[in-house]
Amino acid sequence: MDLAIVQSSIGPKPARPATPSDLTRRYQEVRDFTTALCRDLAPEDMVVQSMADVSPTKWHLAHTSWFFETFVLQQHDPNYRALEPAYAFLFNSYYTQAGERHCRAQRGYISRPTVMQVLQYRDYVDEHMSRFLSSDPAQSPVVKALIELGINHEQQHQELMLTDIKHVFSVNPLRPAYQVATAHATLTPSRQHWIGFGERVGWIGWDGDGFSYDNEGPRHREFVAAFELGSRLVTNGEYLAFMADGGYQRPELWLSLGWDAVQQNQWTEPFYWERKDDEWQLFTLAGMRPLDPAEPVVHLSMFEADAYARWAGARLPTEAEWEIAAATVAMQGNFVESGHRHPAPAGGPGQLVQMFGDVWEWTRSPYSPYPGYQPAAGAVGEYNGKFMCNQYVLRGGSCATSRTHIRPTYRNFFPADATWQFTGLRLARDAQ
Amino acid sequence: MDLAIVQSSIGPKPARPATPSDLTRRYQEVRDFTTALCRDLAPEDMVVQSMADVSPTKWHLAHTSWFFETFVLQQHDPNYRALEPAYAFLFNSYYTQAGERHCRAQRGYISRPTVMQVLQYRDYVDEHMSRFLSSDPAQSPVVKALIELGINHEQQHQELMLTDIKHVFSVNPLRPAYQVATAHATLTPSRQHWIGFGERVGWIGWDGDGFSYDNEGPRHREFVAAFELGSRLVTNGEYLAFMADGGYQRPELWLSLGWDAVQQNQWTEPFYWERKDDEWQLFTLAGMRPLDPAEPVVHLSMFEADAYARWAGARLPTEAEWEIAAATVAMQGNFVESGHRHPAPAGGPGQLVQMFGDVWEWTRSPYSPYPGYQPAAGAVGEYNGKFMCNQYVLRGGSCATSRTHIRPTYRNFFPADATWQFTGLRLARDAQ
Amino acid sequence: MDLAIVQSSIGPKPARPATPSDLTRRYQEVRDFTTALCRDLAPEDMVVQSMADVSPTKWHLAHTSWFFETFVLQQHDPNYRALEPAYAFLFNSYYTQAGERHCRAQRGYISRPTVMQVLQYRDYVDEHMSRFLSSDPAQSPVVKALIELGINHEQQHQELMLTDIKHVFSVNPLRPAYQVATAHATLTPSRQHWIGFGERVGWIGWDGDGFSYDNEGPRHREFVAAFELGSRLVTNGEYLAFMADGGYQRPELWLSLGWDAVQQNQWTEPFYWERKDDEWQLFTLAGMRPLDPAEPVVHLSMFEADAYARWAGARLPTEAEWEIAAATVAMQGNFVESGHRHPAPAGGPGQLVQMFGDVWEWTRSPYSPYPGYQPAAGAVGEYNGKFMCNQYVLRGGSCATSRTHIRPTYRNFFPADATWQFTGLRLARDAQ
Amino acid sequence: MDLAIVQSSIGPKPARPATPSDLTRRYQEVRDFTTALCRDLAPEDMVVQSMADVSPTKWHLAHTSWFFETFVLQQHDPNYRALEPAYAFLFNSYYTQAGERHCRAQRGYISRPTVMQVLQYRDYVDEHMSRFLSSDPAQSPVVKALIELGINHEQQHQELMLTDIKHVFSVNPLRPAYQVATAHATLTPSRQHWIGFGERVGWIGWDGDGFSYDNEGPRHREFVAAFELGSRLVTNGEYLAFMADGGYQRPELWLSLGWDAVQQNQWTEPFYWERKDDEWQLFTLAGMRPLDPAEPVVHLSMFEADAYARWAGARLPTEAEWEIAAATVAMQGNFVESGHRHPAPAGGPGQLVQMFGDVWEWTRSPYSPYPGYQPAAGAVGEYNGKFMCNQYVLRGGSCATSRTHIRPTYRNFFPADATWQFTGLRLARDAQ
Repeated sequence: MDLAIVQSSIGPKPARPATPSDLTRRYQEVRDFTTALCRDLAPEDMVVQSMADVSPTKWHLAHTSWFFETFVLQQHDPNYRALEPAYAFLFNSYYTQAGERHCRAQRGYISRPTVMQVLQYRDYVDEHMSRFLSSDPAQSPVVKALIELGINHEQQHQELMLTDIKHVFSVNPLRPAYQVATAHATLTPSRQHWIGFGERVGWIGWDGDGFSYDNEGPRHREFVAAFELGSRLVTNGEYLAFMADGGYQRPELWLSLGWDAVQQNQWTEPFYWERKDDEWQLFTLAGMRPLDPAEPVVHLSMFEADAYARWAGARLPTEAEWEIAAATVAMQGNFVESGHRHPAPAGGPGQLVQMFGDVWEWTRSPYSPYPGYQPAAGAVGEYNGKFMCNQYVLRGGSCATSRTHIRPTYRNFFPADATWQFTGLRLARDAQ
Repeated sequence: MDLAIVQSSIGPKPARPATPSDLTRRYQEVRDFTTALCRDLAPEDMVVQSMADVSPTKWHLAHTSWFFETFVLQQHDPNYRALEPAYAFLFNSYYTQAGERHCRAQRGYISRPTVMQVLQYRDYVDEHMSRFLSSDPAQSPVVKALIELGINHEQQHQELMLTDIKHVFSVNPLRPAYQVATAHATLTPSRQHWIGFGERVGWIGWDGDGFSYDNEGPRHREFVAAFELGSRLVTNGEYLAFMADGGYQRPELWLSLGWDAVQQNQWTEPFYWERKDDEWQLFTLAGMRPLDPAEPVVHLSMFEADAYARWAGARLPTEAEWEIAAATVAMQGNFVESGHRHPAPAGGPGQLVQMFGDVWEWTRSPYSPYPGYQPAAGAVGEYNGKFMCNQYVLRGGSCATSRTHIRPTYRNFFPADATWQFTGLRLARDAQ
Repeated sequence: MDLAIVQSSIGPKPARPATPSDLTRRYQEVRDFTTALCRDLAPEDMVVQSMADVSPTKWHLAHTSWFFETFVLQQHDPNYRALEPAYAFLFNSYYTQAGERHCRAQRGYISRPTVMQVLQYRDYVDEHMSRFLSSDPAQSPVVKALIELGINHEQQHQELMLTDIKHVFSVNPLRPAYQVATAHATLTPSRQHWIGFGERVGWIGWDGDGFSYDNEGPRHREFVAAFELGSRLVTNGEYLAFMADGGYQRPELWLSLGWDAVQQNQWTEPFYWERKDDEWQLFTLAGMRPLDPAEPVVHLSMFEADAYARWAGARLPTEAEWEIAAATVAMQGNFVESGHRHPAPAGGPGQLVQMFGDVWEWTRSPYSPYPGYQPAAGAVGEYNGKFMCNQYVLRGGSCATSRTHIRPTYRNFFPADATWQFTGLRLARDAQ
Repeated sequence: MDLAIVQSSIGPKPARPATPSDLTRRYQEVRDFTTALCRDLAPEDMVVQSMADVSPTKWHLAHTSWFFETFVLQQHDPNYRALEPAYAFLFNSYYTQAGERHCRAQRGYISRPTVMQVLQYRDYVDEHMSRFLSSDPAQSPVVKALIELGINHEQQHQELMLTDIKHVFSVNPLRPAYQVATAHATLTPSRQHWIGFGERVGWIGWDGDGFSYDNEGPRHREFVAAFELGSRLVTNGEYLAFMADGGYQRPELWLSLGWDAVQQNQWTEPFYWERKDDEWQLFTLAGMRPLDPAEPVVHLSMFEADAYARWAGARLPTEAEWEIAAATVAMQGNFVESGHRHPAPAGGPGQLVQMFGDVWEWTRSPYSPYPGYQPAAGAVGEYNGKFMCNQYVLRGGSCATSRTHIRPTYRNFFPADATWQFTGLRLARDAQ
C-alpha cells in the first residue's frame, strides 16, 4: 500500500535541462512544504498509527529523509556518514534490496527517535544534500534522476501525511481538527451530462521529457471503443439518492467481494460520514461539519463507486478512457496548495470538469503492467511492478495532491476496499 | 470461488439446431458421468469439506440437481413439485435472487440428507427432466438455453468434484487413492522453444453458434503487440531448477502479495509435493508416487507461476495472447475422459502443444469484463460479473475438464493464491 | 477438553475382588452399549465434526478401541499385532507419551477408515481382548486396573458421543432427531427451598475400594463454613424470569469474561433454545419441541449459571459443599439408561433431589489439584493434572451419564464458556 | 487485566485515625510520585500502547485523576465542575456503572489531549482535591475511605506505568532505557533450602484496622496440611539449568494450556531475554545488559513457573501457604523506592528471604472469592469479584511496588500466560 516507487523514464529534461539551482530550489521547496504540513501538530499527534495502513507523521518525516540518504547520499556522496545507522532499519518501507525493515504494522509502537530527533535527522540530511547538490557528482543524469525521484516520492508522502492524520484524528472521540475551516460557497453543482469520445487505437502512457513513474510507460497502443464520460464528479446529493434507494442493502448492485465487505464492515454509508440526530455530518481535516450535497462524494471504496455506477445504469471508466478524456482539458483543479483540503462543488457551464484535483477517480482497470513494462534495475526501481496485483487504478489526483505532482498519465492504485484516501468517482458508459 | 455461471449467448444453434433427442442424450450422458465419478467413493468420503474452498461430493451431487430443479423445472414445468423444499436452502450456492443459502464454509457439517437420499433426489429430478425434455415447453429457445447452461454447469462441478476429493484425501494421513494409477511412459519432454505471433488488432471472445458463457463475450477488438509463446508447458524438472536456485527464498522474484503468501503459508514447494527421505513425492488422484520431472508442474498459484516466469526471464501470457495462439491449433489434449487425471509429459516434435487439457494455464490478465459486457437478466445470469475482482484468468482446461466443455475463448478464473485446482503455466515474452 | 484420564487409585477391590468373569462381562456390556448408541446413525452422521470441541462418532468408536489396544494389548499381550499401525496416530487424543497425534480440529476431515472399517477395528480389538481377559497376565492388579480404566474411559466417550451428535444435528438446518421422543408428564416442579449444612472440617475425595479417577484423591480435610443448598435444580421457567429481567443485558450480573462472552457470542438465551414466532423451542436429541418450564435449564455455560445465581441473590456451590450434601442422598436419578436423554422435572416433596443425573451442576470451584495430588506414572496417568487450569468443576452426572460411572466424589470439568454438554445449576448460599 | 478495585474494609483506622493532614500529605506524596516517574519520558513515549495489555503513560496519568474526579469530587463536592466532560469517556477503564468507556485496545490511538493537557487536568483535580480535603465533607468515613482507595489505586497504576513503559521500550529496536543503571554487587545467592510449616486450621485474609482491598477478606479459616517453602526465590542460574535440560521442549513438564502457549508463542526462554552471540542478555528498565545468574528469574508466566517447579520435583505454593509463611517475617524488601527497579540477588544466611518485593510470586491458587466475600455496593466496589475467573493469585509485591502499598494478605492476580509484570517464583512442596 506504500505508494509506487518512481523513476525518471528519460532523465534530465532535454528541452530545458534542470539547472542545478532549479533542482536545489525544488528540493528545498518540497522539503519545506513537508514540515509546513506539520506546523500545527503536537508531538503526540505525530506518533500515532491508527490502523495498519496509516503511518505516523513522524515516520513519514523520517522515511522521506531516509530515501535521500539511502539512494543519493550513501551511494553518491563518498563523504557521507549516516547520523544513526539504526534508522536504516526503522525507516525503510519495503525495499528488500535496501536491507531489512521494521514491521509496518508496528510503526506506532516506536516513540524514539522523538519528533525533535527526527527533525534533526531531516536537517542533517538537508545540510548534506544542500552541499551535495552543488557538487559535481550531483550533475550526472543518473543522480539528478534519483533526486527528482526523491522529490516526487516526498510529494506522495505529503498526501499520505494528510490522509493519515485525518484518520488518526477521526478515531479520537474528541474529533480534533487539523486545520481551520476554509470558506466555500455552497453551489448548486453544474448539471451532469455525457461527453462522447469516438472509437480509436489510442496511444496511452507517458513519453514526455519530464519526470514520470515507471508504471506510466511504455507508451503503447490500445484499442478503445466509443464511450461517454460524465461531465463532473458524482456528488454527495446523488450518493444520498443511492442510499435512499437501498444501495447498501441490495446485493445485486455489488461485486461479490464488495458485498462481503459491506457485510463484514457493516458499511451503511461512506467512510467519515456520521449520523447525528437527523442530519448527516462529515469528518474533514477541519473537523466535523454538516454534509454538503453539492460536494463530490469522497472516501468511497472501489466497491462503493462500482455499486453506485451500476445503480445509476452506468459503469466506471477504464484508465485508457480516462486518459483519452483527460488529454482534452487543462491540468487545473483543487489541489493541496489551495489549502482547502476537501473536494469542492463543480462550478461552470457543464463542460468536462474536475478531471484533476478534488478526488482520485476510481477506474475499473486492475493495476497491471503496460505491454513491454520493465521495472528499473536495483532497489530504487524494485517495486512498482510488485504491487500489480489485486489493486485498482485511480486517476487525476486529489485535494491533497500537489499540482506539480500530477499528470494525465499518472497511475495511482489502491485495493478495492480502501477508503481513507480522497477517493471518489465519475461515471462512464458505452457510446449509446 | 464457485465457478462462473453461464448463459447461451445465442440460444439454439442456428446452423444445426439441437434436436430434442440430442439435448436429452447429452443431458443423460452428463448426469451419468457425474455419478460415475463417485463410483468408488464411500459415503464417508462424500461428506467431508477439508477447507472452505472445497465442497463435499454430496453437495456437488445435490447442487447440480438443484440447478435444474430451480431454473428449469420450478420455472417452466407447471406440474413440478419439489421433493423437499428445504433443499433449496441447503443446495443453493450464491444466487441471492434464488433465495437464502446455507453458509458455504459449513457444508461439511451437514450429514443429512444422506448420500442415498441425495441420489434419490437426483433420480427424482432426472425423472421429471426426462418427461419435461420431450414436452412442448422444453422446445422454446429460452428453455433449451437453460438446459444447455445446466449441462455446462454440471461439467464444471464434475471438475470440482475431482479437485475437491483430491484435497479431501490429501489431508488424510492415510493418503487414500481415488483411482488406480494409469500407466504412462516417462518421456523426455520435447524441447521448449519460442513461437512468434505478430502485432495486430485482433478479435477476441466468442461469436460462434454454440454454447458459451456470458463472460466470453462480446467479441471485440484488442490491440496486441508482437509476442512469443513457449511451445509447451513448464515441467517439474524445470521448476526444480527454480527451487534449487532459491526461488522460494528470493523476494525480488515475487509480487509483493505473493511474497506475503510465501511467508504466511511457509511455501517451499508446490502444493501436493512431499519430501520423503531424499526424494520428491507427489500426491495424485492415484495416491502418492515419485515426482516425474517430465510432467508439467501443476497445482501452482498464480504467484508461483509468475515468480517462475520472472526467474526464467519471461512472463505470463495475457489472455488475448493465449487466445490468439490457441486459434492456431486443434482442440485436443489430455482431458478427463482419458481417465489419467494428471497432466502428462509433452511429446511430439516441439510445435505448439498442450494448449488444451493437462493444466489450466495462468495468465497475467486480471479477470475483468470485456468491453460492452452485460450480464444476463435474472438469477441465472446474475453472477458472472460479480466475480470480476481480484481473480486471474486461466485458459485451456485441464486433465479434469471435459473435452466437450472447453473452448479457445473459455475464461476460467481463480484468486492468485489458489492451488487446489490443476493449474500450471506456459511462458510468454515480448517479441525479441 | 478431552475428559480426564483415569486410574484406579487402589487397584482391585479388596472386599470383593472383581472376578475375571465380572470384568469380562462389564467389558462386553460397555463395548456393546457404545455401538448400540450408534444404531440409528448413518455413516454420514458419524464423520462430521461440527466444531473443534466435537469429535465425529467414528472417532469415538475408534479412539476407545485404540485405548485398549495401546495401554492393554500392546503392553501386556506379547502376541498382539496392531491391525493398522497408522491408527495409532489417527486415534490418539492427547497422550504425548503415547506418540504423535492427529490435529484435533481436523478430525472431521478424515473419511477413511470408513465406519465399516472402524467397526472391524473394534471387533478386532474385542476379539483380542476377549482372549486376553481369560489369560494369566490379565489377572494382575495392574492390568485389571488398566482394563477398569478403559471401561470408565469408554463410558466418558459414550456421553460425549451423545452431546457431540446432538451438536452435529443442531447445526443442520433440517434439525434431524437422534431418537424418538419419550413421553414425560409435564409436572409443576417441587417448590425450591434451602437445605442447611453446618460448619465442619470435612473429609473430601475418594478413599473407597472401587474405581475412581486420580483427580478424586487423595482424600483430605477441608474447612467448610455453614452453607445452604437449593433443594432442586433451577428450571427453565425460573431462567425465563432472569431473561425477562434483562439478564443478558446487565453487565453487573456477570463475571467480566462472562460479559465478554455474551457480547462476542451475542448470547441472548441458552444454547439450543430457538425463538419461533412467540414461543421458545428447544433442540433435543429427539428433535425440536416446545420449551417445558418445569424442566431443569440445561446447556448453560458457567458464566450463565453464575450470572443467574447472582441475579437470584445466591451463588454457585463449591465442590466441597456439593460433595458434603451429596453424601446425604442416594445415588439415583435420570441417567443415560433411562433412554430419555434430557433432564426431567423434579417431582417429590421438596427434599434434596436431582443431585445425580439430569444435568452436570456447575460449581464455583476452579479445577485444581487436591492437596497431595500426584498424577500416575506413564502415559496413562499423564494427563489429569495437565488440564487443571482455566476450567471449572461440575458434579453429579447428567442424563447422558451411565449410572455405573458416577460417584459423589466424581469431578468433571469444562471451561467456563462451554455449553454443548448437559450442564445446569443448583443454587447455594452462606448460612443465613 | 486492570488491577483490582479496592475498598477500605473498615474505613478510618480506629487506633490512630488518619488526621486530615495525614491524608492530605499522603495524597500529595502519591500524586507527586506518579509525575516523578515520568520525569525522563518524552511526550512521544507517553502515547504508545505496544500491546493490548499495555496502557500509554498518558492514559495512566489521566485515569488516576479521573478516579478522584469521578468517585470523590463529582459525588461529594457540590461545587465541582469537570474540566472536560469527554474525559469521563476517554479515561474510564471498565466501570460500567460509571458510564460508557473507550475501547481499551485503542488507547494508543488517542493523541489528544496532549501530555501537557493531561498534566493540566491533573493539576485541576489536585487543586480541587486540595481544597476539598480540608472541607467538612472530606472528614466523613465514607469519603476518607474513597480517598484512601484512590491513593491505593494510583499506587497500582504507578507499578503498571513502569511495567508498561518497559514493554513500550522493549519493542523499539533501539531498546531505549527508562533510567540509568544502578550498581549492585553480583553475589552468589544464599543456598536454597526448605523451611517447614505444620498442619493447621489457619486464619487467612485481612482483619486489621488499615486499608485493604475487598478481595483480601473476609478473614476466614482454612485447613492447611503441613508444607515446606523454599527459602528464597528461584534464580536465573537455576532457570538456565531447566532450559539446558530441555525445559521448553518437554510437554510432560507443562500444563496442557501451557504447552499450547509454548508452541503458539514459540517460547524458548523467559520474556525480555535475548541471545546475543553466545551470551544471554536481559532487557531491563536501565536497558540491555548481560544476564546475572544470581538474580531472581523474572517475567515468567505462571505456565513457566509451574513447569519449572514440576521439573524441580516441587510445586508452586498455594496462597494460603504463602500467607502463613509471610506472617513469620518482616515486611521489607526491594521495592520501587529503592530506585533499582529490578529484582536483586538474595543475600543473607539462608533464612526465609525475599518474601516481599523483588518479584510477584506465582501461586497455584486460582483467583477465587474467599468464603463469604461480598463486593462493595456501587461502581467503586463493582469489579473485584468480576475478575475472579481464569486468573492466578500472586503474592508479595515486586521491585515496582510501593513499600506502603503491600501487605501479607495482598492478592494480586494475572492470567496464566502474562509475562510483562515482574513475576517470578518460589518453590513449595508437601511436608516430607
